[in-house]
Amino acid sequence: MTVSISNTPDMLEFFRDAAGLKNAAGNPRNKHIVLRILQETARLIEELEISDDEFWAGVEYINRLGKSNEAGLLAAGLGVEHFLDLLNDAKQAEAGRTGGTPRTIEGPLYVAGAPLREGYARMDDGSEDGIATPFFVEGQILNLQGQPIAGALVDLWQADSKGNYSHFDKSQSEFNLRRRIVTDADGRYRVRSIVPSGYGCNPQGPTQECLNHLGRHGQRPAHIHFFLSAPGYEHLTTQINLSNDKYLWDDFAYATRDGLIGEVQFIDDQVLAAARGVTGRFAQMTFDFELRPAASLEAQQRSNRPRALQTA
Amino acid sequence: MTVSISNTPDMLEFFRDAAGLKNAAGNPRNKHIVLRILQETARLIEELEISDDEFWAGVEYINRLGKSNEAGLLAAGLGVEHFLDLLNDAKQAEAGRTGGTPRTIEGPLYVAGAPLREGYARMDDGSEDGIATPFFVEGQILNLQGQPIAGALVDLWQADSKGNYSHFDKSQSEFNLRRRIVTDADGRYRVRSIVPSGYGCNPQGPTQECLNHLGRHGQRPAHIHFFLSAPGYEHLTTQINLSNDKYLWDDFAYATRDGLIGEVQFIDDQVLAAARGVTGRFAQMTFDFELRPAASLEAQQRSNRPRALQTA
Repeated sequence: MTVSISNTPDMLEFFRDAAGLKNAAGNPRNKHIVLRILQETARLIEELEISDDEFWAGVEYINRLGKSNEAGLLAAGLGVEHFLDLLNDAKQAEAGRTGGTPRTIEGPLYVAGAPLREGYARMDDGSEDGIATPFFVEGQILNLQGQPIAGALVDLWQADSKGNYSHFDKSQSEFNLRRRIVTDADGRYRVRSIVPSGYGCNPQGPTQECLNHLGRHGQRPAHIHFFLSAPGYEHLTTQINLSNDKYLWDDFAYATRDGLIGEVQFIDDQVLAAARGVTGRFAQMTFDFELRPAASLEAQQRSNRPRALQTA
Repeated sequence: MTVSISNTPDMLEFFRDAAGLKNAAGNPRNKHIVLRILQETARLIEELEISDDEFWAGVEYINRLGKSNEAGLLAAGLGVEHFLDLLNDAKQAEAGRTGGTPRTIEGPLYVAGAPLREGYARMDDGSEDGIATPFFVEGQILNLQGQPIAGALVDLWQADSKGNYSHFDKSQSEFNLRRRIVTDADGRYRVRSIVPSGYGCNPQGPTQECLNHLGRHGQRPAHIHFFLSAPGYEHLTTQINLSNDKYLWDDFAYATRDGLIGEVQFIDDQVLAAARGVTGRFAQMTFDFELRPAASLEAQQRSNRPRALQTA
């Protein structure tokens, strides 16, 4: 016997009041969104027979989630960020805009303002020399006809060999493994980096706590994040996921997609290593990106998602 | 033109995976709740055409909400806590359990472990002597037949004359304006306190930020919170809202209810003041509570909502 009051006239009127719809101040869009969230929250509480204890445990979970700054991580881990990608794909397909390299999730660990270089950058600060495997990555930014886009901006970031990101991992130097590269006349970018390890959720954090309740791990395959932009082209947020990783198709954040897998070659050849300016084993990968023409000025920009600022 | 993918077989399967329903570990109840939240979140994103910018602004809002420990305050301010009261009323009415003093919201500012007294307590620490108005409150805890319940526990807490609560307001002494009183043989409790002011949301906090978007204030009428319990009776979480307050029926947290309004008498009579042991103006109020018989052992207990602990 499910008792329901959420759809009574009194209750609908009450939520209209709570959402501010009975006053003229404030923001109509926000009011409408809050009204619908309230209605659906009430409906779900009834349908699922959420107990008071469950409700308040959820409220306290949100407080802990925020204190850990993990709301964005949870949105990725529960697949909502991937859903937004698929929904954007569907909206663009509906408008006839298809082709090019697939988008995938940004994740919560971008930091704006990384060092800017032309054509080539070394991404790591050398602190893992002799520990991490040197990694040479290059490729071209192309249009849908396969022609190079010179002067495209390649804004890329990755974890270190322990799966940690600079800025959030305070033991790393400022902007370690974060660079912005402007492509050369051939639309080419080249980096010397290190092979990243996959990120894993903080085992003591609220995101992993939720995943534990769901019987899920919180691991990602090794990957490199990219923002790609050029005048006249759609901004692309995407990632290269490394082919050798055991989590490649078992990514807790669901970012791996067909067309986004980078084939990593590990090379044990000292002549080739010397030619690269390193010793011992190294890895290399080539990955080209194809950008779609922009249908509007705003499509050239990344979202206005609030992001970390480097304040070191 | 609303594009929708949330109800496709692929997407339903994806959310089942994200909610952990394809593995045998974890907690089935949590999986079911998360699945339904994911489905409804996706559906609302589509229906409201939530932009990426709006979604990520919401995620960042949750982080700020948690950092300020205000998720419980927002739940009150958006009326969800009041909805839970009305839903509990409806469930109990369905089961034939009616009568007695109405419940109303707890709010997020209870602290367990206040000093325990028999029959009478002075609640304030005297630090507002000469500033706040002395306030004498008394009444009986009764059963539905109007008979006194001796040995009932009256756990009450209130704001000071500035609308602030001890523990959260670090300028107040430990447990100021928080007491537990065991009723006497007549079921009576008596306190000497000060007239509280209504609580207001932090103007810089995320709850008030949301209310501003909704064109709403974040003020409460002056009130006193109560937990009432006795063996054999339903636990009652309620409040007395003071009759003289301009926000009495304009409470941002919707806690005022018929049957919960306390008539405050302000008295300027030095003979009566002297009899009370004070000088100058004072206030007095009588308020009786009626408790329902408990239908189960657990109905005798307050919810397991996570609460602040006194750690001073």
